[in-house]
Amino acid sequence: MLDGLMQRTPLQIIGILNHAAVAHGEREIVSRLVDEPIWRYTYAEMSRRVAQAAHMLRELGVRPGSRVSSLAWNTHRHLELFYATPGIGSVLHTANPRLSDDQIVYTITHAGSEVLFFDKTFSSMVARIRPRLSGVRTFVALSEKWNLEANLTVASSYEELLTRQKSSYEWPVFDENAAAFLCYTSGTTGHPKGVLYSHRSVVLHSLAAGLAGALGFSAFDCIMPCQSLYHATAWGLPFVAPINGCKLVLPCEKMDGASLHELITTEGVTFSGGVPTIWTTYLAYLEQCGGNTASLKQLVIGGSAVPRAMAETFLRKYGVEVRQIWGMTETSPLGVIATPTPKLAAKGENLTEETIWTKQGRLQFGIELRVVDEERRDVPRDGKTPGTLLVRGPWTIERYFGDDKSAVDAAGWFDTGDIATLDDDGFMRITDRQKDVIKSGGEWISSIDLENIAVACPGVRIAAVIGAYHPKWEERPILVVEPHPECAVTADQVREFLEPRIVRWWSPDAIIIATIPLTATGKIDKKSLRDKYKGYLINTRKYGAHSEPK
Amino acid sequence: MLDGLMQRTPLQIIGILNHAAVAHGEREIVSRLVDEPIWRYTYAEMSRRVAQAAHMLRELGVRPGSRVSSLAWNTHRHLELFYATPGIGSVLHTANPRLSDDQIVYTITHAGSEVLFFDKTFSSMVARIRPRLSGVRTFVALSEKWNLEANLTVASSYEELLTRQKSSYEWPVFDENAAAFLCYTSGTTGHPKGVLYSHRSVVLHSLAAGLAGALGFSAFDCIMPCQSLYHATAWGLPFVAPINGCKLVLPCEKMDGASLHELITTEGVTFSGGVPTIWTTYLAYLEQCGGNTASLKQLVIGGSAVPRAMAETFLRKYGVEVRQIWGMTETSPLGVIATPTPKLAAKGENLTEETIWTKQGRLQFGIELRVVDEERRDVPRDGKTPGTLLVRGPWTIERYFGDDKSAVDAAGWFDTGDIATLDDDGFMRITDRQKDVIKSGGEWISSIDLENIAVACPGVRIAAVIGAYHPKWEERPILVVEPHPECAVTADQVREFLEPRIVRWWSPDAIIIATIPLTATGKIDKKSLRDKYKGYLINTRKYGAHSEPK
Ligand SMILES: Nc1ncnc2c1ncn2[C@@H]1O[C@H](COP(=O)(O)OP(=O)(O)OP(=O)(O)O)[C@@H](O)[C@H]1O
Ligand SMILES: Nc1ncnc2c1ncn2[C@@H]1O[C@H](COP(=O)(O)OP(=O)(O)OP(=O)(O)O)[C@@H](O)[C@H]1O
Ligand SMILES: [Mg+2]
Ligand SMILES: [Mg+2]
Repeated sequence: MLDGLMQRTPLQIIGILNHAAVAHGEREIVSRLVDEPIWRYTYAEMSRRVAQAAHMLRELGVRPGSRVSSLAWNTHRHLELFYATPGIGSVLHTANPRLSDDQIVYTITHAGSEVLFFDKTFSSMVARIRPRLSGVRTFVALSEKWNLEANLTVASSYEELLTRQKSSYEWPVFDENAAAFLCYTSGTTGHPKGVLYSHRSVVLHSLAAGLAGALGFSAFDCIMPCQSLYHATAWGLPFVAPINGCKLVLPCEKMDGASLHELITTEGVTFSGGVPTIWTTYLAYLEQCGGNTASLKQLVIGGSAVPRAMAETFLRKYGVEVRQIWGMTETSPLGVIATPTPKLAAKGENLTEETIWTKQGRLQFGIELRVVDEERRDVPRDGKTPGTLLVRGPWTIERYFGDDKSAVDAAGWFDTGDIATLDDDGFMRITDRQKDVIKSGGEWISSIDLENIAVACPGVRIAAVIGAYHPKWEERPILVVEPHPECAVTADQVREFLEPRIVRWWSPDAIIIATIPLTATGKIDKKSLRDKYKGYLINTRKYGAHSEPK
Repeated sequence: MLDGLMQRTPLQIIGILNHAAVAHGEREIVSRLVDEPIWRYTYAEMSRRVAQAAHMLRELGVRPGSRVSSLAWNTHRHLELFYATPGIGSVLHTANPRLSDDQIVYTITHAGSEVLFFDKTFSSMVARIRPRLSGVRTFVALSEKWNLEANLTVASSYEELLTRQKSSYEWPVFDENAAAFLCYTSGTTGHPKGVLYSHRSVVLHSLAAGLAGALGFSAFDCIMPCQSLYHATAWGLPFVAPINGCKLVLPCEKMDGASLHELITTEGVTFSGGVPTIWTTYLAYLEQCGGNTASLKQLVIGGSAVPRAMAETFLRKYGVEVRQIWGMTETSPLGVIATPTPKLAAKGENLTEETIWTKQGRLQFGIELRVVDEERRDVPRDGKTPGTLLVRGPWTIERYFGDDKSAVDAAGWFDTGDIATLDDDGFMRITDRQKDVIKSGGEWISSIDLENIAVACPGVRIAAVIGAYHPKWEERPILVVEPHPECAVTADQVREFLEPRIVRWWSPDAIIIATIPLTATGKIDKKSLRDKYKGYLINTRKYGAHSEPK
């Protein structure tokens, strides 16, 4: 081989902010805060505060390679840590504050963090778990000093620590494979697992995610991430936005309809995204208030399957394009995204919408994808045959943090644990998680498909399908339905809606009206539903085919 | 430091085609050819032929690290070599067929190539220089066998060599810093210098060039590169297009107005680009025929300064947006590109257009830029103070091929040899090349500015300003003007047009109507103009200030 003779500049995350500060220095970042007025500054100003934050971290004894945890919402201070921490070569672990105390203690301890930054919201939680966080030396409240409560005197104030620092920093140059962020999976199927992103993986992911077939941001966009900063680093938005010179609007924890609507209309938000539950809530708010979505053009939604009905309403009534995205913490998270192609367009508008709204998305540069059967042979690319989804590429995990064995096979393929189909147009559809698949008499029933149909039933807010033990068929689907507040939906109504829309043997053996538990990232908590309802058909002896419970 | 735990998949160029083949397999590549009908196939089919080409290269004894040269136009066969050669770990040297025999022999010899692929157009040239290419073992005509001429029996036919090969290839995985392409600079200021691109530099450049602030291609675009494939790898278009799923249209050598127009209208071209001379010609064609530009939306033009008048006419009369780009072979070549920003937009349409049409472009992610004075201190970012332009980044050169010393300073900055200003909106303007700058009585006169004004004079096709010796002022500008064919422009008319538009001391001491020589990449050949006219003022004794020659 012959070596190329180009510069080997390492891809470093701080380079993204440095770029924004000189190329889009005047572009704004607007942030809601906990118990403080809205904050507003520019990339140029942010870059100076990030330098101060870096000095602060060094002063707190944070060294290259060591970990720092955050328990924080989507705010500019949290964002500053996104640049300052990797900037000095340390690793930011963005803990998920919606986990249980036990899980939070578990992840911060597993991360081995020395410093914990937390929003005021979490002061009592921090006070509670503090004795169990023996590795954490320093607690810093992401707040002004005047805003600290008396019981927080144990902690310093971020602002106070910051002010005395210099506003420029000689950013060290180091290997782009160095760790930058530690994010834990949602814990939907078990213990949360740690994914250790590198500078390289983050920068490459940000470049690819900016392309037109993915997020397609331009300098004229105003981005409001409703993806949590702690969840797979908000799907890369904190990086894709500054690379492309976009304005950033950070909603703190205020993800209710009215609060989002206020920011969208006053700040001129063109693009947002997040998990489906947030946008179901926002849509309900819009329907109730009769408002319009102003400048909003696009929502990228994923984390769980996007109900077609929601995407359709957003477009038809509000002119907002919903793009479904599939990804995992393990894929940084961009996997596929449902953007149109000329091939689809040639098939007409109906088919385009059908595809865009019912499939998770299409192949993207930088992430290879295979759907395989049990012998790891590729299944036909017919959009029908399901199989195990494998992925590979420069922003896919190689191994979990703390594991000594690789998470990928010899050829580098990572098993996602998802079941999917792939079609000839390059679109992938998730039919289930491996663990959620319902095996009825040897045949598979897709819980996601059933849920998507059920959620289109008027009055239904969330629908969850799980497999319950059945003496004859091994497993049969049962459907749990949570109505919109103040809607009284009955099991009969839901069944009536379902029957003409599904094949007969998919018909749930029970339909239950109940509140559906969500996980820390807003997904349906099927583990706990299964714990509760797994024996339902046997206990209630309601296991005649298509029998109707209570 | 702590290592990240993501996959370290090397960025390899063949990955781009592999992606296009599975994600956009049916998207077309359409190619004109020399003496053959138009060729039309898909990325999926191309990928199979590229595999065949790889087997062919191995059969010809091409090994990893060794070089292969091409003397070829923009055709699908040339494009196949763009993937097959780096795919097997070898290096494609794209020789510039518009250079002189001597220079072509020099570059192929300097490259150390073992195989030469050439288009039929060059058969007699190849026959001529063959005895001087002692290192080249094998000559392959990029043609069908039936299309080979008798005098070419010394060479094999590409198609014949291809057909017997297998249409799949086990692409080797190797270090992304391996060399992929060898491109020589245009030789505008001296001997052409070799730039050795790596897989990494090409892939990173392609990702960044795809972003909205740069080329912004979407899957719906149809791209026709009129940038030569041999010139800085056609500005990355052969890679940016497949990454984004674009249709590709290759015009072979037919860059005349009528031929381009035919492809644009019949193939639905949305995007093209190249050096200004091509688009001056195309505009003249349009003006003459009164045609419209059909689907064409955007032209990215660079390599030399883009006359404002051309950009303005393209927009006002044809609705085509001209985006100026500045770059060098040494920068892969994306440096800056003149796309709008909200900051500009806020200043109003006039100022936006003024900026977009008179500056080379704005800062892009991945290429850092400094404008410095003689002591290497940054000059003010006021859009006025000129200085030497330095660049740095992962697709900027580190050293020239065959050189043992680095081309960059200790901090990694590469001196472009261009003089530029930078403004507060992040826009850069090239005022001159260091070697072209005219120093009149210690003050600098920008040859590019003068040329831009002169070329707006009705009837003027190209304008070139050079410095001529002057006994009192050291140098004074003289202007050489080439009129449009069949336009009779006089020096007096040009002077009359100029005078009210420039400061008095910039007024050229002589205006000469003559044919302007162009270099091998279509730039004004100032070296030869200087050879011819350097002594003009002294010889003609026309050196009274603002005197009028002839
Ligand atoms: N658009 C989508 N449609 C359906 N499922 C999705 C979609 N996007 C993401 N998912 C699901 O979310 C998973 C990734 O989520 P995440 O990384 O947040 O953790 P998790 O898998 O929910 O939790 P854990 O791995 O700890 O069990 C995917 O594997 C997939 O099952
Ligand atoms: N938009 C532009 N406006 C003005 N000049 C440009 C523009 N784009 C490119 N250039 C000029 O072209 C140069 C790069 O051209 P290229 O790499 O093809 O070789 P060259 O510099 O012309 O030749 P050589 O380096 O061999 O003398 C830049 O350094 C700059 O001088
Ligand atoms: Mg998971
Ligand atoms: Mg040059």
